[in-house]
Amino acid sequence: MGSRMVNNLVKHGQKPRVYDVVPAALASVNGAIPCSSAEEAVDGANVIFTMLPTGQVVKNTVLGEKGILRKISKNALLLDSSTIGPQIAREVFEAAKAKNIRFLDTPVSGGVLGAEAGTLCFMVGGLEKDCKEVEPILLHMGARVFYCGESGAGQITKLCNNLIFGVTMVGTAEAMNLGIKLGLDSKVLTDVINVSTGRSFTSELYHPVPGTRENAPATKNYDGGFSVELIAKDLGLASEAALSINAPVFLASASHQLFRTMNTYGLGKKDFSVIYKFLEGVVNKN
Amino acid sequence: MGSRMVNNLVKHGQKPRVYDVVPAALASVNGAIPCSSAEEAVDGANVIFTMLPTGQVVKNTVLGEKGILRKISKNALLLDSSTIGPQIAREVFEAAKAKNIRFLDTPVSGGVLGAEAGTLCFMVGGLEKDCKEVEPILLHMGARVFYCGESGAGQITKLCNNLIFGVTMVGTAEAMNLGIKLGLDSKVLTDVINVSTGRSFTSELYHPVPGTRENAPATKNYDGGFSVELIAKDLGLASEAALSINAPVFLASASHQLFRTMNTYGLGKKDFSVIYKFLEGVVNKN
Amino acid sequence: MGSRMVNNLVKHGQKPRVYDVVPAALASVNGAIPCSSAEEAVDGANVIFTMLPTGQVVKNTVLGEKGILRKISKNALLLDSSTIGPQIAREVFEAAKAKNIRFLDTPVSGGVLGAEAGTLCFMVGGLEKDCKEVEPILLHMGARVFYCGESGAGQITKLCNNLIFGVTMVGTAEAMNLGIKLGLDSKVLTDVINVSTGRSFTSELYHPVPGTRENAPATKNYDGGFSVELIAKDLGLASEAALSINAPVFLASASHQLFRTMNTYGLGKKDFSVIYKFLEGVVNKN
Amino acid sequence: MGSRMVNNLVKHGQKPRVYDVVPAALASVNGAIPCSSAEEAVDGANVIFTMLPTGQVVKNTVLGEKGILRKISKNALLLDSSTIGPQIAREVFEAAKAKNIRFLDTPVSGGVLGAEAGTLCFMVGGLEKDCKEVEPILLHMGARVFYCGESGAGQITKLCNNLIFGVTMVGTAEAMNLGIKLGLDSKVLTDVINVSTGRSFTSELYHPVPGTRENAPATKNYDGGFSVELIAKDLGLASEAALSINAPVFLASASHQLFRTMNTYGLGKKDFSVIYKFLEGVVNKN
Repeated sequence: MGSRMVNNLVKHGQKPRVYDVVPAALASVNGAIPCSSAEEAVDGANVIFTMLPTGQVVKNTVLGEKGILRKISKNALLLDSSTIGPQIAREVFEAAKAKNIRFLDTPVSGGVLGAEAGTLCFMVGGLEKDCKEVEPILLHMGARVFYCGESGAGQITKLCNNLIFGVTMVGTAEAMNLGIKLGLDSKVLTDVINVSTGRSFTSELYHPVPGTRENAPATKNYDGGFSVELIAKDLGLASEAALSINAPVFLASASHQLFRTMNTYGLGKKDFSVIYKFLEGVVNKN
Repeated sequence: MGSRMVNNLVKHGQKPRVYDVVPAALASVNGAIPCSSAEEAVDGANVIFTMLPTGQVVKNTVLGEKGILRKISKNALLLDSSTIGPQIAREVFEAAKAKNIRFLDTPVSGGVLGAEAGTLCFMVGGLEKDCKEVEPILLHMGARVFYCGESGAGQITKLCNNLIFGVTMVGTAEAMNLGIKLGLDSKVLTDVINVSTGRSFTSELYHPVPGTRENAPATKNYDGGFSVELIAKDLGLASEAALSINAPVFLASASHQLFRTMNTYGLGKKDFSVIYKFLEGVVNKN
Repeated sequence: MGSRMVNNLVKHGQKPRVYDVVPAALASVNGAIPCSSAEEAVDGANVIFTMLPTGQVVKNTVLGEKGILRKISKNALLLDSSTIGPQIAREVFEAAKAKNIRFLDTPVSGGVLGAEAGTLCFMVGGLEKDCKEVEPILLHMGARVFYCGESGAGQITKLCNNLIFGVTMVGTAEAMNLGIKLGLDSKVLTDVINVSTGRSFTSELYHPVPGTRENAPATKNYDGGFSVELIAKDLGLASEAALSINAPVFLASASHQLFRTMNTYGLGKKDFSVIYKFLEGVVNKN
Repeated sequence: MGSRMVNNLVKHGQKPRVYDVVPAALASVNGAIPCSSAEEAVDGANVIFTMLPTGQVVKNTVLGEKGILRKISKNALLLDSSTIGPQIAREVFEAAKAKNIRFLDTPVSGGVLGAEAGTLCFMVGGLEKDCKEVEPILLHMGARVFYCGESGAGQITKLCNNLIFGVTMVGTAEAMNLGIKLGLDSKVLTDVINVSTGRSFTSELYHPVPGTRENAPATKNYDGGFSVELIAKDLGLASEAALSINAPVFLASASHQLFRTMNTYGLGKKDFSVIYKFLEGVVNKN
């Protein structure tokens, strides 16, 4: 994900310094300056991006004993595009603020394909003027930048969107499995849904039934795309956020359980639209 | 619903005979011929439409001791646009066939507004040639006609679509409630969702948060629209159909429970997007 | 089931006439009079018992064109111990009443083991005086007779009990799987639960973890006992009954979905405590 | 809770030093030595108990900058009976170990009544020899001590038990509401359940229908007992634990949602058996 974003920066004439714990990832970007450590990459920079797998890794990388916060210049802008939930985003914001460093949470939607095409959507939490300032750079990597509110608001926005994505996928898979088992043709049913009240991003572009949409992961053996593990992680973060304010999330919670069960059945690395096969009773881990 | 459909038939030069148990409904259609009984309305007709509240009413009206099947001419085409599930549709099909009467299940999506505007979508189950034959008349009342398969297939298609509609509404309401309670602005969150993976008919046009979409029922005190009672009925029919083939419908089932609980709380007549207020903890029956 | 009940009648000096569509079943009862048809079995009898797999079979057997109701003597007592839901029970009651035949719904709890040991619990719906009259005979086959109320009340009582049994089983399996995966010993955890607020019939006698209770189906490869198919059927009937009055049954409904999914995974004939293995992610159909 | 436990220590001849942030709590124990700070209470003690509302309070009180760990003597035994989940228990264990202090997690079941009567059940995690050593003192306050395994195991055991308690309560409430709305008598239905497969601690002693059990909170306007807030907290901790190992907990999760919704409806302080009234559609906050 990160390397695709860097490539787009380079295309727009930037010359970023880059670092990754996996050396191979560094090799895949041309025109950027590879560094041998995170410290080296951030040293003296005005704008710093991080894109990391989990909140714990963000905490270690930024706030840890050897974290980059120690090395970042005063008044520099640190942006984190990982999906980590609002709480850790705010912790980083506060820790940065205490050192006169500015922080924005800038999670993205659009996935690996969006990162490659430079069409990501950035959801930004933090100070509005900081968002404005960095927007031109963000638009090198994405098509849209939304200022969502104070620190953590970008994370909340991302979780809310993915909550709907997860739930809609399960609902669409339930309906498709039901209809097909009762004798309907997947294409006809999909055509009707897509001109009716059941239509969604999922039914139009990310269809869970193999062969119904040429480019959907379902048609490619559920490989690539957005993994069961990742949607389970996001629904877990959404549940935690909901828990903190006692907001009921019945369907997000039931979907979360389903994706966790699929993890247990060895489907964690498959695209999450594999829920269709799970409901069908045909599980294939390979 | 029926009167709006008739009005569109009249607009296209038809002069249908009409009957309703509620005399006032008959008065609201100009240019049609009001009848004093269902028997009178169907007597000698080539094409007959019924639009009724439940499967039991359809059975009574068509198959009952005083049912219209006794009075319908041989080879005539009977179409039922009620949402009644595939099983009763097939019963009517078989009973009609035994009397050399042709039957199609032709449920619609688009609601009262679609009926008025003549933009309904017809989902048709039965013999394909019968569907083809009646398509021109259907297009007087709607914008699209989908032949879905053998008898009952129109019903199944309708239930599958509404299953997704119900689930997506609940999921969207959960996310909006979560985001707003965590401080997000409804409009900003909606804007992001509508360019992201969470977008759907619901988020674009039928938004559950008051004031977010001008014409949505949510903005009109949750009046009009698609009632909690009706989505509960449709999810009940979908669950029954799922039960008959052991297809799991986790989210449809959980949504069904929520809408039934809302019924218990006196919200049965409100538009089903009132799930947003239910999750918010602010129930207002009026 | 039926043959075990007949054996206990014989032990108490009764000489019942018996019929089953499977001839082998008739051969397994000594001391009863095998008949070559249901009509023959009921002809002239004062008290008739039926024990059948589904409501539809009950309707066919009793009310159908060749149903036994035609052959039963006036004022005789017909008892049905099948689990069929209140609606069909009431239909049979009304049809019987119209012919001056008395009907009681008398479903049982206790399973095959209880039938064999003569310790069944009868839940009776119908007229109280009819229940009183037949109680001595019921006590030949069971240990307890509860008069639950008017026609259908026995069925409702049975469904309510089994709803709890299903839900408690899933909840207990969730907790055991959670605890064991987190390192607890099944026996220690069970010992604590059984002196605490989590204890139930399930945790004490019908434990879902193999080896924890010597006589539980879990310890016998989940063979015998109460099948996934049957609990799914009962939860389906409970859901239908709940639907008829809009009573929310969130957990019964979610449990129902789980058991249906397990059906889809080929576990329908296993004892329903196999939910523990399903949650564990280790499904074995054999 | 704590004061009741102290009273039982005193009855058995102990003379404990005690501290609470609420001075009134200290006044309610006779025969103990009230202290003006936590530090004073633990200074030089061999055995120290804490009983606190949440994991965060435990962390602050024990590990915080002014935490008691700084003041506890080497080799002393620290026991925490709060319900805080395994993770924080293990953190405290490790921090204590680093200072040569021994730690046990010792959550209890039995509630306020059990604490008063001295019949608590202690679930212990940590080193077995430490559990053995302190068992005689625990038996001054409770009737049973279970050694559950290494650090955190007491917490896990408690969460597993309460998961079942929560789920069984909701399931029992669903069945009772269903049966009563369909015309059954609460007492008759309960009598049947209690000799059948649906029986549990809930149906026998903690019945959710007012008037069915004299001493149950339901009969006392749902006051006292185990609050909706607390079961929601415990189900939240159980969900978190389940999340950490991807164990599916469908019903615990759905129950959690229900109790959180009830919180939203102002029922947080009521006994959790008030779920019965929530399902009935009759919510009364007072």
